[in-house]
Amino acid sequence: MRLRNKKWAGPWLAAHPDLVIGQTRATELKGHWADLFPRQQPIQVEIGTGKGQFIIGMAKAYPDRNFIGMEIQESAVAVAARKADEDGQPLPNLKFLYGDGAGVETYFEKGEIEKLYLNFSDPWPKHRHENRRLTSPNFLKGYQSVLPKGGQLAFKTDNRGLFEYSLYSFAQFGVNFIPDGISLDLHADEDKMVDNVATEYEEKFSAKGFPIYQFIGQFN
Amino acid sequence: MRLRNKKWAGPWLAAHPDLVIGQTRATELKGHWADLFPRQQPIQVEIGTGKGQFIIGMAKAYPDRNFIGMEIQESAVAVAARKADEDGQPLPNLKFLYGDGAGVETYFEKGEIEKLYLNFSDPWPKHRHENRRLTSPNFLKGYQSVLPKGGQLAFKTDNRGLFEYSLYSFAQFGVNFIPDGISLDLHADEDKMVDNVATEYEEKFSAKGFPIYQFIGQFN
Repeated sequence: MRLRNKKWAGPWLAAHPDLVIGQTRATELKGHWADLFPRQQPIQVEIGTGKGQFIIGMAKAYPDRNFIGMEIQESAVAVAARKADEDGQPLPNLKFLYGDGAGVETYFEKGEIEKLYLNFSDPWPKHRHENRRLTSPNFLKGYQSVLPKGGQLAFKTDNRGLFEYSLYSFAQFGVNFIPDGISLDLHADEDKMVDNVATEYEEKFSAKGFPIYQFIGQFN
Repeated sequence: MRLRNKKWAGPWLAAHPDLVIGQTRATELKGHWADLFPRQQPIQVEIGTGKGQFIIGMAKAYPDRNFIGMEIQESAVAVAARKADEDGQPLPNLKFLYGDGAGVETYFEKGEIEKLYLNFSDPWPKHRHENRRLTSPNFLKGYQSVLPKGGQLAFKTDNRGLFEYSLYSFAQFGVNFIPDGISLDLHADEDKMVDNVATEYEEKFSAKGFPIYQFIGQFN
């Protein structure tokens, strides 16, 4: 969902280059992201981090991991980063990348990140926009190229059409992308909810009674 | 679901050996099922045909295919077959097999049947009963051994746990079992409902507002 344009976003981002990494610097950081974080620990990335509730929640819940929230919308990444910055205590294990998810392999080397998250991505329901869906085969190849063998992609959505499409798309990888966790009603799965960090959308749509679908897969 | 035992079932089945094939004769018919039908056309099989609403509906809707309803419960197969027999006009393209789905490869030769249907199979929710689920890997291998290359398995259930389990199980086949049709809410998919023949359970559970899950896959 597109946020209204926020006039303060551009200047705010320009004033926080260490928290929100721009595309040019992100390209230069390929292979060196670990240098941005005080602790050397696995890096996990959310593609399309929106207003940041998920990635900030993860950074707080898992101080033993480093996190990067990627977001292509200036206003959204500014809202997310400001929320992370204003939250009382700075989070040493969280950075943002203001850039395009299409280019995940532009920014990261093979094995540089341990896990990828896709949460409530744009469903692009029209058939002619299939290639824009973040679970379409070309994107999956990109994810495979930055994850190590055994690296995971964790995908949540409330959009039935996108989830059904994704099951087809995942199946094209055959045994090179094997399910590690599937739920067709995540919020009804008590065991899985223990570790769940919800996004803004997830709270809203789950409260309306819509099921949340989850697929965690592992690339081999 | 187990039907109450019906005393008339045994004698009725004994009196209709051409409509309901017993296990011994079914084994002898391996490779020769086409001989039972007046028209030579593709044979499709439902495993666990219950009281027969689906397979009878299919036989009426598709006179250009031959159908076999397999059922292991004597009372159920008798109810189904009597329903087919009493329906006013005999259905030349429908037979029943009173036998065990575990043995699909006991009864059919590779390529002898074109498509298999699994509808609302017992979910066997306990982990130790996994091998009894009709979508567990050993059953899938059996289905693969009787279907031709490109042959389909069409699976419907309202049981979320069984469907989730089945997605894992299917994925183990990799590109040898590729999805051809997926719906996570079949009765909301107008396009797919045009061809849908509902079972007794399906009507009941869908009416209660539960989603019906469908997976059609193709063996390669």
